This record gives sequence, C-alpha cells and structure tokens, in this order.
Amino acid sequence: MIFSIARFSLYFQFVFLTLQGFDDHRVLALPKTSENYSLQMRPGAPFKIALFADLHFGEAETTDWGPGQDVNSKRVMNTVLDDETPDFVIYLGDVITANNILIANASLYWDQAISPTKSRGIPWASVFGNHDDALFEWPMEWFSAPGIPRLICPEANSTHSGAEACSFRGTHRLELMKHEIDHNALSFSKNGPKELWPSVSNYVLQVSSSDGPKSPVVYLYFLDSGGGSYPEVISTAQADWFRHKSDQINPDLRVPELIFWHIPSRAYKKVAPRFGIHRPCVGLINKEGVAAQKAELGIMKLLTKRPSVKAIFVGHNHGLDWCCPNEKLWLCFARHTGYGGYGDWARGARILEITQKPFSVKSWIRMEDNVVHSRVVLSP
Amino acid sequence: MIFSIARFSLYFQFVFLTLQGFDDHRVLALPKTSENYSLQMRPGAPFKIALFADLHFGEAETTDWGPGQDVNSKRVMNTVLDDETPDFVIYLGDVITANNILIANASLYWDQAISPTKSRGIPWASVFGNHDDALFEWPMEWFSAPGIPRLICPEANSTHSGAEACSFRGTHRLELMKHEIDHNALSFSKNGPKELWPSVSNYVLQVSSSDGPKSPVVYLYFLDSGGGSYPEVISTAQADWFRHKSDQINPDLRVPELIFWHIPSRAYKKVAPRFGIHRPCVGLINKEGVAAQKAELGIMKLLTKRPSVKAIFVGHNHGLDWCCPNEKLWLCFARHTGYGGYGDWARGARILEITQKPFSVKSWIRMEDNVVHSRVVLSP
Repeated sequence: MIFSIARFSLYFQFVFLTLQGFDDHRVLALPKTSENYSLQMRPGAPFKIALFADLHFGEAETTDWGPGQDVNSKRVMNTVLDDETPDFVIYLGDVITANNILIANASLYWDQAISPTKSRGIPWASVFGNHDDALFEWPMEWFSAPGIPRLICPEANSTHSGAEACSFRGTHRLELMKHEIDHNALSFSKNGPKELWPSVSNYVLQVSSSDGPKSPVVYLYFLDSGGGSYPEVISTAQADWFRHKSDQINPDLRVPELIFWHIPSRAYKKVAPRFGIHRPCVGLINKEGVAAQKAELGIMKLLTKRPSVKAIFVGHNHGLDWCCPNEKLWLCFARHTGYGGYGDWARGARILEITQKPFSVKSWIRMEDNVVHSRVVLSP
Repeated sequence: MIFSIARFSLYFQFVFLTLQGFDDHRVLALPKTSENYSLQMRPGAPFKIALFADLHFGEAETTDWGPGQDVNSKRVMNTVLDDETPDFVIYLGDVITANNILIANASLYWDQAISPTKSRGIPWASVFGNHDDALFEWPMEWFSAPGIPRLICPEANSTHSGAEACSFRGTHRLELMKHEIDHNALSFSKNGPKELWPSVSNYVLQVSSSDGPKSPVVYLYFLDSGGGSYPEVISTAQADWFRHKSDQINPDLRVPELIFWHIPSRAYKKVAPRFGIHRPCVGLINKEGVAAQKAELGIMKLLTKRPSVKAIFVGHNHGLDWCCPNEKLWLCFARHTGYGGYGDWARGARILEITQKPFSVKSWIRMEDNVVHSRVVLSP
C-alpha cells in the first residue's frame, strides 16, 4: 500500500498546486504506484539534486541560541534553493538533534527543516542520521530542586496522541518517517523493508528519462547507517537487501547508481587526504578525522565490485567536504548545511547535476554566500 | 483507587486460602483500604522480615547457565523461608536483570522471583534496583549475519498486548509494578506518588500492634534509589515527600521507622570499615568498595536528624553485608540472595526481628547452608 487516503488527497493537492503556481519546479514526480518511486527528468535539461546535510534542527531548544540556529539553517537552505533551483533535495541525516528534544515533538522540528523545500514545491527524500532518533536520557539536574520541568504538550503534533505523546520519551525512526510520509505528497522517503528494522530509511528511487518511466537514467539508493537508538552500522541484512534489489532492477548494470547514507563507511578512512586536499581528491575543508561506522559488514564490498555504482555521499563529519576516489567509486562528503551541530565552518550544500545523454554526474558545493567551489566530475 | 476488580477478587482468594491452609503464616494483612497499607502483628509474637536482595532473575536467559542461576536463587529463598518462617518479605531491588531480557516478558521473571514467597502465603513488598528497568540496547552482533533473532512472543504475559508486547524494547518500572500489584493480593508494593515519577517505588507501610491498626509499632519506608532508565539518585522531591509523609503520620516521632532502598547512599562510604569488619560494625564480608548513588540530594540529612529512624537497609553491593552506625542511625547492607549478578560469595538473606514491648529491632544473616551469623541489635 503506497497511498493512504490522506496521502492520495495530498498528492492531488500537490498536482493542483503544481499546475497553479509552481511552474518553476523542474521535475515531474510520477504517481507513486510501484514499489520504486519514480522521478522524471524534463526534456533537454539536467537533473539537479541539492544535498542538505546535518541541519540539527531543535538543538538546545530551551536556550536563546538554539532556535536562532534553526533560523540560520533555513536561510542557508533558502539561499541554496534560490541560487540552484534543484529538481530534488536529499536530506542526508541529522535533520534534527533528537537527543535534546524533551517531548515527542521531534516531527515539528522535522517539518521546519523540510519547509524551505516543501514551500517551493520541490520533491525530496530523507535518510536518517545518528541524531534523528534517540533514547530518552533523564538529565541528572532534574532530580534536585527545582525538579522535573512541566511538560508542554504540543497540540499540533497529530502523529502522537494522549499520554504517550505527552511523556518524556525518545523519538523513533518509524514515527518520524510516518509523519513525513503521511503529511507530504512531495516526500519520496520510505520506511523501507520491515525485515531491516530497526534500520529504517532503506529504499531506492528511479530517476527516469523524459521519454517515460521505462527509461531509467539513474537509481538513487538510500541506506540507513544507524546510530541513535541502535549501533552505527550498515548491517549484513541491508547489504543483502541492496544485492537482491540491484540484481532485480538493474541486472545487466546498464543503469548508473548513486548511493546516499549518513555516516561514512570505514573505506573513507583509507582514502582520506592528509595535510590539505590534493588531486585526485577535490574539496575545500579537511579539518578532522573521518568518524566512520563501527563496523564494515559487507556493503562496501558489494558497491566497489559493482561498476554501475558511481559514488557514495555521506554527511556526519561537519569539517570534511571532499570527494576522493576509491578505485572507480567516488567517496564524497556533503557539506555541513545547518547551523546546528558542532563546528563553525561556513555552511553550504553539495549539488549534483546528472545528464542523460551522455550520462554524467557533476558535483560542486554551493555556499551560503553564493560562492561555488570544488567542482568535480564523478562519472567517466 | 486501591482495588481493581481483579485485585479485589484476588484479595478474597487470598483471605480464603489463608483460612483454608496457610495457618502457618504469621501476619494478618488488613484490607488495603487506606493509602498506608497496614500489616498487623500476631499477639505475643515478634514480627519477622526477610530481605531478598539482588536476585537478578532472567540474567543471560539464552545461555545454559542463566536459567540455572534462577533455579539456585529459588533454592536459597526456599531455604530461608523454611528456616525462618518470616511474617513478611522485602524484595530489595535488582529482582530481575532487565538489561538482557529481549522482550517484554520481564514480569514473567519477576513472577518467578516472588513465587517462593507467594506460594507460602507470605505477604511482601518490593523496591526497584538499577537493573529492574532498562532502556533497550541493540547488540552489535545482531547487525551481522545471522541477523536479528526472531522474537518469541509470550502469550501468558497479559500486562502487554499486540505489537507493543512483541517488540524489542526496554522494561518500565510502572509496567513491572502494575503487573505485580494487579496479579498479587499478597503484594504490598505501590507505584508511589505520580509526582515522583520516573522514580516509582516510594511508599510507606505500617506494621500495627496486635491491638489493632490504630496502634502502629513501626513504619517501613520504601524509596526508589533510581538507576536503569534514569540516574541513580534519591531526588530532592523524594526527600520532600518523605518529610511531608513522616511529619503527617508520625509528627511526634513516637513510632520507630525503618528505611529500605537499593543503592547505598554516599553516607555508606563514610562509615565503611577498612581491612575487615570491626566493632561497632557487624558483618561477615567486606570485599569491595561501596558503589554509592551518584549524588546526595537531601534524604540523608532528613534521616540522620530524625531520631525515630533506626536503620537503612540497602542491597546493590554483592560483596558487602555489614551494618555500621552513622551516629544513632544504622546503615546496613542486606546479603546477596541471588545466584544472578556478579560475585561468588555464599548466598543468604538478612533477617529483621521486631518486638513491640519494649520496641526492638534485631538482625542477623541466614545463609543458604542454614548457618546464622552477624547478629546485631539495631535499636537502643
């Protein structure tokens, strides 16, 4: 079941809005009637994707500076969207900082994070980072006077209800994703196969030629790299799912594939440049060590052996924005987009531009001050 | 509301069983019609309490040796109950090791832990330890092949139902206590005032003279010392609750008071004997440092200033069984009763014997091999 009634009506609302006013949006989102959601390119135009990484909305919500960060993060997204007018946006994890959100209003912050994209009628997809869901940890200081703060229960949060909504508890990936999907016809996110849970955001989207949905140009694979409520890994089961899915929909490896997840795999440590960034790597900042997943359980072996896979894109490290080749596969960081999270490096977003004939993937980083840098071609 | 329908009918079942066959049980449990549950002494007899500490049922449930531990722990309890025939039992926390219990069947292990007491018709009360409730932690090894084990969903666990019951999640103090209370008329445990949550097992029981419930002999205070899903502390709010409650029911300090919780307060570190156990301390094992609460937020100040408080009893440290005076207040460890949990020191249970006229509290430790040691008088 792809459509709930609400989702169906929202979809028509989207189509209506599209016909009415959003004539500047560049992609035709086909009805989501198959398991593989389909995005369609416009005739004669490249397909442009903006990656928004590590926004960390809702961080330090009770302070003066916390909500100010979110305002700044929205400004970055607005700037990038106005400058680049992408066809599609990928939220590359750590959309929110759930760790510090006191009540089950995480989805309200999530809504804020997607609002610049949504308000422009641009479709998007999201994957989870390690800060998006979290176990609830009781702060020690609540046990001395003045005690546990009174809960302020959000009325607007229709995903949750009653006592369950208004209690101190952690956020859950499934709830966050359900809220995004149920309330947004423009969202191409999916909960992924149930057998992969607690890992959730595992799915594939097809970008089709303007000729029609039977002419795939590229497959976009999204994987949940864990963290938060469970370990930071891509599991053997996820690797198996990728192998089966890619064999099924792209058996002859003719369609190029791009991969998106949040936490760099351990292979990133091997290719990481030392003392600055030198060719063949391309990027502007190399300010910290790679904070890789806790283990490598098979996915990298599959991806490096598969020539149709062109590049992997991750966030997580706010002080890294490079792309480096690992044999024929590019390993890329996005760019820290949000004012939330650690680090004061200038904010921006990695852009991908995909052409069909001949197939190519170009990338660059668009900064908040409109500067563009780190142009690189990620396809032969 | 004290009685649910089920509880009410169970209570009558208990009274019926008592009249029928359990004539060897020593205490008359009065109907629980007031906030302060009342236990009544038999004419001319002392009131004897057995403390069962750190049973850790359900530990390593998937191994060969885990369930074997629980069998051994039951044997210890059976031996103590047969030798001492106490009037009342106190489960002093860490009844289960919830950390490693995969599904919401923690209450089934809890049922096993109380079964030796219940089957003899002896009433009891319980407090929580740091291992009784727990956040769910996904083991790293589940993310490589062979993957996440299939859930085995317990049908017998009527506290939980449907998908919520059969999912990987932590245990909750409120659910554990609800299960104990709803299914056991002999349980004198309480959920405690709602304003003290997430701290749960905070309540007081009155032991009355054989003359009737208007002649209290001693008040037994139970406090939740935290741990597991929240920090290991007795909060300022709990201290305030104790102050109000004790001022209300014992304003002239005429009735002696005994205190029970799981994790030693920091005051235990100050009185801890060094190199063996010497007078005025009394005990047999002193094998480790005191693992105290994370902070001292007011309860000890109240207790030491209140001459009606005679002693505090804790578990938590399996390698300590001493009582030491802290001015006029005795600080006592129980004795590790369970085969679950760390340490191979011989198992036993601290016994308390309370007389009415004149008031006295004597204590000793009854071992699994029937030996009795560490006799001490805890009242002037």
